[in-house]
Amino acid sequence: MEYSRVSSKVKATPSGATTPLAVLFDAYGTLFDVYSVGSLAEQLFPGKGQALAVMWRDKQIEYTRLVSTSNDGAHYQPFWDLTRAALRYACRRLGLNLLAEFESQLMNQYRHLSAFPEDREVLRALKDRGIATGILSNGDPAMLDVAVKSAGLEGLLDHVISTHVIRKYKTHPEAYALGEKACGCTASKIAFVSSNSWDALAATWYGYRTLWVNRQGLPFEELGTQPTRTGSSLHDVLDFFA
Amino acid sequence: MEYSRVSSKVKATPSGATTPLAVLFDAYGTLFDVYSVGSLAEQLFPGKGQALAVMWRDKQIEYTRLVSTSNDGAHYQPFWDLTRAALRYACRRLGLNLLAEFESQLMNQYRHLSAFPEDREVLRALKDRGIATGILSNGDPAMLDVAVKSAGLEGLLDHVISTHVIRKYKTHPEAYALGEKACGCTASKIAFVSSNSWDALAATWYGYRTLWVNRQGLPFEELGTQPTRTGSSLHDVLDFFA
Repeated sequence: MEYSRVSSKVKATPSGATTPLAVLFDAYGTLFDVYSVGSLAEQLFPGKGQALAVMWRDKQIEYTRLVSTSNDGAHYQPFWDLTRAALRYACRRLGLNLLAEFESQLMNQYRHLSAFPEDREVLRALKDRGIATGILSNGDPAMLDVAVKSAGLEGLLDHVISTHVIRKYKTHPEAYALGEKACGCTASKIAFVSSNSWDALAATWYGYRTLWVNRQGLPFEELGTQPTRTGSSLHDVLDFFA
Repeated sequence: MEYSRVSSKVKATPSGATTPLAVLFDAYGTLFDVYSVGSLAEQLFPGKGQALAVMWRDKQIEYTRLVSTSNDGAHYQPFWDLTRAALRYACRRLGLNLLAEFESQLMNQYRHLSAFPEDREVLRALKDRGIATGILSNGDPAMLDVAVKSAGLEGLLDHVISTHVIRKYKTHPEAYALGEKACGCTASKIAFVSSNSWDALAATWYGYRTLWVNRQGLPFEELGTQPTRTGSSLHDVLDFFA
């Protein structure tokens, strides 16, 4: 296989940086399309599917932050439970009647999110080059297990790391530390890939070399730090090894 | 003065709870109307003022969380700077051309947010009953100073507490601890008032007795914890002392 595709959006590697030894991927939004629940949501709530998908996702992220910050994890809940709580909040906020069967259907859909089309190809390209690969995700282990298997990614990942073990979520530094531990090297030797700008930002702060996969053409965060690279699909991670 | 107004939405006090010794108020959204920038925003960006005010506020809150969580405050920025960063992000995201003069005008407006009409009356009623009063806010000291003076609240507040001193924002437990320290008693003897559901939630987790002022008729967070009370204006705090 040839992977010569180079996005014009990709920024130059800082001079002197060495080739990463491993690549870790965020899962939700990066390998798996969190907005792929939108079409089911639209069937269940005509005219509101998009709004529900967006608010559900935003609230899910907010809940990971609230439980991570407060009282050192005393109010931790697994990602699956936060995902359900966020769905319930979003429906109440939007005035949608979330029948029990609708909740079941939407949660089941969330368990089987669509993978992005390039996932397998990019992971295989990394494996072919002898690069260690993994997931570093807020998803709990059961969710990640189903998602990885559904997408047929099992044989292509050396590490599937869930933050569940520390009862805190990204962007807590302890969450990013799990990636170093699994890979057996410092973050500066690991490329971290995320479609979530907050995740790419905080991973950069932590010390990873980062690729922000900006699929939607959004602005990056305005906090004075840029990711190492910006691209438009997972393919752009291969530029770390060009 | 008589304060007999009791909202039908107010929930019963847990039996056995003693009367609070002090009342701490959140500032932004609770004493000061963060959406009062909307009309200026609408003048500057016709048809987009409301969307800008909402996204600006949401991003500002998100940024407080990101800098609080990452690397133990190493990426801390004062609330004023985060407010400006959030404005810039929101404009880019909405495709609005934020001219330097527009930024100045909007930031200046943010420094002089409208106070809610009942602020003074409720603070005075608490003072008349001998209750200690204060602000516990993410705002930096200079912002709070101007806001308090603009609203004519100086003489009615015993404490104006900014989280700036710890370089972390609410909902970090260290932020809520500042209230206990200022008041000289445990959170269980302090009523904490916020219009922000996440703030009322985390203060409840921390141990405060809480009033969520739900001005907009929103659902509360779906994380399994309820505030001590829910009301529709600051007047409802007086029910702690009925």
